[in-house]
Amino acid sequence: MQRTAFGEMTCSIARTLDIAGEPWTPLILRDLFVGIRRFDDLQRDLGISRKVLTQRLNHLLNHGIVERRPYTDKPVRYDYLLTDKGWELCDVLLAITAWGDRWTADEHGPPVILHHTTCRHTAHAIITCSACNEPLRARDVHVTPGPGASPAAVAPSETAA
Amino acid sequence: MQRTAFGEMTCSIARTLDIAGEPWTPLILRDLFVGIRRFDDLQRDLGISRKVLTQRLNHLLNHGIVERRPYTDKPVRYDYLLTDKGWELCDVLLAITAWGDRWTADEHGPPVILHHTTCRHTAHAIITCSACNEPLRARDVHVTPGPGASPAAVAPSETAA
Repeated sequence: MQRTAFGEMTCSIARTLDIAGEPWTPLILRDLFVGIRRFDDLQRDLGISRKVLTQRLNHLLNHGIVERRPYTDKPVRYDYLLTDKGWELCDVLLAITAWGDRWTADEHGPPVILHHTTCRHTAHAIITCSACNEPLRARDVHVTPGPGASPAAVAPSETAA
Repeated sequence: MQRTAFGEMTCSIARTLDIAGEPWTPLILRDLFVGIRRFDDLQRDLGISRKVLTQRLNHLLNHGIVERRPYTDKPVRYDYLLTDKGWELCDVLLAITAWGDRWTADEHGPPVILHHTTCRHTAHAIITCSACNEPLRARDVHVTPGPGASPAAVAPSETAA
């Protein structure tokens, strides 16, 4: 898969997938989100090879999604922590979770329950409109080229339903 | 990549990635969302091989994300259309777009502008809490095992920050 091509597309979805579209990456973010911070713990929880985990963590470090801080010197070992950019990507994971809970859960129900510590209720993510605060549904969205559109990108965007 | 393993994980993120985690899939959904419905048009817009596009469309058909309707009989040709399940996955793309616009756009700005036809304003997606309607940030979310949790999944979930 030509990963670079996705990052070069003039599309925020493609650019985001270039960073987080590899299937393991969101699961690494999920683990960091629930407080699993150390290489060995991540490796054990995900059942991922050390080589792939190293590659994915380095990728996330390079993109500023994750930062690391040593927790011991001899040998040097790191805690992997989400940056603000990484935390906001985890917000997107909450939206993915809501879709998955609705459409992929088995008869027992969702695998996890989210608790919003701010309002102290169980919760799920709702995708809402920044302008009117009502749910933002793709059916009710029309897209036009933005300031960062490439000339080539204008044509398909203008065919928006 | 052992795709099946993701679908078998007791995790709505992993299960969703099993359906939509391959990098081309969200871009196909994006194209269907903006009104590109025919195989040749999708193939041209994405610059994807016919073989891969066929595989991905069949995958989306099998998962009930997309349905197809013939628009001509000789030869049979299809329009590919989003189902309700697919439209709701496009809602998640709007959340991905908002993150990408914020963190991956170049100095020119976002590639596309969203217009919410319901309220007639330009808009971006905000991920909000189903209980209090305030933004739902992963930093403010604590997770516990849900009814669909597997015994193995309980341990990491209970370490939630």
